[in-house]
Amino acid sequence: MPSYKAPVDDVMFVLRDVLNIERYNNLPGFADAPLDMIEAILGESAKLCEEVLAPINREGDLEGCKRHTDGSVTTPKSFKAAYDQYVEGGWNGLTTDPEYGGQGLPYTLGAVVNEFMSSANMAWSMYPGLTLGAVAALQTHASPEIKRTYLPRMIEGKWTGTMNLTEPHCGTDLGMLKTKAVPNGDGSYAITGTKIFISAGEHDLADNIVHLVLARIEGAPAGTKGISLFVAPKYLVNEDGSLGERNKVACGSIEHKMGIHGNSTCVMNYDGAKAWLVGEANRGLNAMFVMMNEARLGVGIQGLAQSEVAYQNALAYAKDRIQGRSLTGVKAADKPADPIIVHPDVRRNLMSIKAFNEAARALVLWTALKSDVAHRSDDAKARQSADDHMGLMTPVIKGVLTDMGFDNTVKAQQMFGGHGYIAEWGMEQFVRDARIAQIYEGANGIQALDLVGRKLGRDGGRAITAFFGEVGAFIKDHEADDGLKAYVTPLKAALGHLQQATMWFMQNALAKPDNAGAGSYDYMHLFGLVALGYMWALQAKVAQDKLKAGANGSTEHMNAKLMTASFFMQRMLPETGAHLARITSGADTVMGLPVEAF
Amino acid sequence: MPSYKAPVDDVMFVLRDVLNIERYNNLPGFADAPLDMIEAILGESAKLCEEVLAPINREGDLEGCKRHTDGSVTTPKSFKAAYDQYVEGGWNGLTTDPEYGGQGLPYTLGAVVNEFMSSANMAWSMYPGLTLGAVAALQTHASPEIKRTYLPRMIEGKWTGTMNLTEPHCGTDLGMLKTKAVPNGDGSYAITGTKIFISAGEHDLADNIVHLVLARIEGAPAGTKGISLFVAPKYLVNEDGSLGERNKVACGSIEHKMGIHGNSTCVMNYDGAKAWLVGEANRGLNAMFVMMNEARLGVGIQGLAQSEVAYQNALAYAKDRIQGRSLTGVKAADKPADPIIVHPDVRRNLMSIKAFNEAARALVLWTALKSDVAHRSDDAKARQSADDHMGLMTPVIKGVLTDMGFDNTVKAQQMFGGHGYIAEWGMEQFVRDARIAQIYEGANGIQALDLVGRKLGRDGGRAITAFFGEVGAFIKDHEADDGLKAYVTPLKAALGHLQQATMWFMQNALAKPDNAGAGSYDYMHLFGLVALGYMWALQAKVAQDKLKAGANGSTEHMNAKLMTASFFMQRMLPETGAHLARITSGADTVMGLPVEAF
Repeated sequence: MPSYKAPVDDVMFVLRDVLNIERYNNLPGFADAPLDMIEAILGESAKLCEEVLAPINREGDLEGCKRHTDGSVTTPKSFKAAYDQYVEGGWNGLTTDPEYGGQGLPYTLGAVVNEFMSSANMAWSMYPGLTLGAVAALQTHASPEIKRTYLPRMIEGKWTGTMNLTEPHCGTDLGMLKTKAVPNGDGSYAITGTKIFISAGEHDLADNIVHLVLARIEGAPAGTKGISLFVAPKYLVNEDGSLGERNKVACGSIEHKMGIHGNSTCVMNYDGAKAWLVGEANRGLNAMFVMMNEARLGVGIQGLAQSEVAYQNALAYAKDRIQGRSLTGVKAADKPADPIIVHPDVRRNLMSIKAFNEAARALVLWTALKSDVAHRSDDAKARQSADDHMGLMTPVIKGVLTDMGFDNTVKAQQMFGGHGYIAEWGMEQFVRDARIAQIYEGANGIQALDLVGRKLGRDGGRAITAFFGEVGAFIKDHEADDGLKAYVTPLKAALGHLQQATMWFMQNALAKPDNAGAGSYDYMHLFGLVALGYMWALQAKVAQDKLKAGANGSTEHMNAKLMTASFFMQRMLPETGAHLARITSGADTVMGLPVEAF
Repeated sequence: MPSYKAPVDDVMFVLRDVLNIERYNNLPGFADAPLDMIEAILGESAKLCEEVLAPINREGDLEGCKRHTDGSVTTPKSFKAAYDQYVEGGWNGLTTDPEYGGQGLPYTLGAVVNEFMSSANMAWSMYPGLTLGAVAALQTHASPEIKRTYLPRMIEGKWTGTMNLTEPHCGTDLGMLKTKAVPNGDGSYAITGTKIFISAGEHDLADNIVHLVLARIEGAPAGTKGISLFVAPKYLVNEDGSLGERNKVACGSIEHKMGIHGNSTCVMNYDGAKAWLVGEANRGLNAMFVMMNEARLGVGIQGLAQSEVAYQNALAYAKDRIQGRSLTGVKAADKPADPIIVHPDVRRNLMSIKAFNEAARALVLWTALKSDVAHRSDDAKARQSADDHMGLMTPVIKGVLTDMGFDNTVKAQQMFGGHGYIAEWGMEQFVRDARIAQIYEGANGIQALDLVGRKLGRDGGRAITAFFGEVGAFIKDHEADDGLKAYVTPLKAALGHLQQATMWFMQNALAKPDNAGAGSYDYMHLFGLVALGYMWALQAKVAQDKLKAGANGSTEHMNAKLMTASFFMQRMLPETGAHLARITSGADTVMGLPVEAF
């Protein structure tokens, strides 16, 4: 069975040394979490993830969820006790509003805990994950009364939350949404319709389930401008906060999926369910979009998380499994063969996953800090610039981290040979689980379109200009530094490719929008490589400084950072040239074949 | 449920127009299969695949195989009737030796039928596939008596075959193999040991199962030079050909796998099983290697086959599913949204799968024809050159077609959005099934090592020199042709990259073998892209010629070939530059991190 060890040390390196989290101590919640406190909290989270959640991951996959004839759903046997332990530990309130019982700590800390939980048990982690998404939506948009009614119990974790967007005929294109809401005359609405792919839609972990539902109020405009957001609890809530009658929303069936079997993916039938408007009528999509950045960041984290846990197990196997001899002579003379980690092709795979994981983690934490600034700073300019970063980087993190994360689970599985294909080893579960992250919360093709079609040009290109400025300034500051040249020079070339691609869109996509669509996916990945490359350059700079200063016992760690950074620059970054070539080839060959000729 | 239509027309285009199969009519078996006969046979095969095998593919996945307490194994309910129909149709003998009841038709035809069957039902197709592998091994190495005993029933399909190589502690490194063979004194041996991952090891489709087993004769040298090949039937065969007593070989358990659930993957326990030597003692690996080229080609075909069937279903979905509007204005004004095939990113995915499928098919058939020449020609020089090609191209086809084939099933699944993750749609099964082809019959990292470590330098580089010569001559002959420039120029650049990489190995791998190991995987894919690019250049040439000549009603088809060739050149071939950069970065960053620093 696979095991998991939370990478607390690497997180601390990034937060303390690379991102210097202490400079944010003026933000609400940050002063309450000095570095030693962060380390202690992460240590506790690690324990829960390693000892409670990881051991039941495979069990959850095997058992899956069962819907009973009364519409109730049972999760895997061991899930409830683990969830209770999570709630009792107060984990659900870690970063939420103290006014409703949360601890108000930085969202950045929540992003770390999210990575750990998702590595340990992705299917399980989605139950609290969706609750926190629903909390964020209510927090931002709901009336004080709705907040008082739902938030305390949700933040405690006694109630969970869901997001109900997709319908059988529409996912990406929510303008076609049919679920309708009819005013009851008492301020509430009656919701009728069918929603599909509702994660955690029905289960046995919590006392109540709070559904956030997109629906169209009778008479509302067609298309996306007539969609409103509602809250519809499984059990209606009495004035005193106790649970009242069962609402008319029920799980009609659960989906049989490729992975995340431990999470119940439900078809939810609304049959005049009582619901209350969240935010303004017909502005439901806006309400959803505000919370989407963090939800998408969370999905990007899932890509990293599966890559990390798959890596750890592949590494252990590569050190343990003996097969063949090293090309450079026998390494383990006492054994009939060498451990497979001596083989360059095995090492290449390990290095490429490691080089991704450590840069992706830095990228996530950098962006999570921006989210904290965007939400907590009292400096409007800082908020704006952080918000720009979030808007730009969210589709990149969602799309690139889940694509590369999935590929890494496949690479890790491959190292096991035939054993990787056998369920008992657990590697194939990582592949199946990681796969969904590329699809949900906006399929990755949609992320690419969001990046190129919406985010690039927004506010006159303010966000991308700022990104180019920051990376460009780092390059300028350090390109003369002989010790950093090996990292800065390739990064400069890659940034040049990204800038050329951006320019190409500016010159070629206005007159011919298909040129943007045809290049968007490559652009997203080109962007991701530059962002990850920048994370490696930053880490290399810190490592070099620490080594110069004496490193205090972390010499091996800092040398490893430099070697991994070199690997990334020489082995992974060259891909940017191929992306650029594809982008600038334009839409002609992509769209040239008539539909009927396929 | 997914559907399948065998691409008979594309096969005929490749065989007739691109490869000009008629020029081989002097080879045994070829004159018996003129073009119209080939088309008729493929039409019949298509019918079996589309109407019998494809409809039971998902059922096979859902039901899987069951082992009973007596060691017997039941395949999915519908498999037996389909297998009987296949046997009655005489399909198993299509290309095998007429002396033992086969029809002796070209192996090339068998490769096509293999693609069709594997697209329709990969798990099912492995039962006959393994039989044919065992037939080939016996045909080449077994004594006349063993051949007479086993081949007729195996060729008929009444008995099936297996390959028993892997043991729990050794797969790639067969030198550590422990299964032992003790002479019984009557010319037979008693085999004892445990074999794992034995596909079709036990099942209910055939009257007898003929196991080919690698084992070490008592007292044989250690390592790979002490391994012998044996035949051990499930039921011993009486003098008159009837079945005798049950042999002491039994299925101990079946594996729970990620995919190909319909094929029984068995742990086989040999407990003094009666067996006979095949070929010379201690030369078992050589016997195995001879048949490995075709087996690996067969696995490469599986990669193409899953890519093809996944493509067909994604294409149908992309034409049917409506979501969003085209970037260039409404296309389906009568509907609330446009079919998603109007979106450039969807089209990009479809084109990249199509561009792979049609070139991979040509590459397989080109190589299958070489196999026919290698086995059937009476011209020693032609045999040698064909054999060179086979040796060189087999690891490329196995490694590249299964990697790209798997990636394509993932891309096709992605087009379905959330529906792609749901089992009912069948797309996720293609992904799970395709995954094994990257692993078995030599994991793809081993293919890359075989290519770089063994095949490149063999006979003074004769094979690679011939390949460079052929592609180079085509380029030289056509680079001045304005109509072909768009295909020849990119191919020339890509070939240049491959030649530079080859040269780099010659200069850098001798002194430092890790440089070869660290670059082998990229080299295999670089080679694959050049080979596929050459296949597109050949097809473009034919298409241009036919269009010039009037095309005879195939104008649309030939224009599609040209557009798809252009897509390949502009969108897929640029990757060669990134491969070259990685290869020439060498082993330093790959091997630089000490094992203990991971």
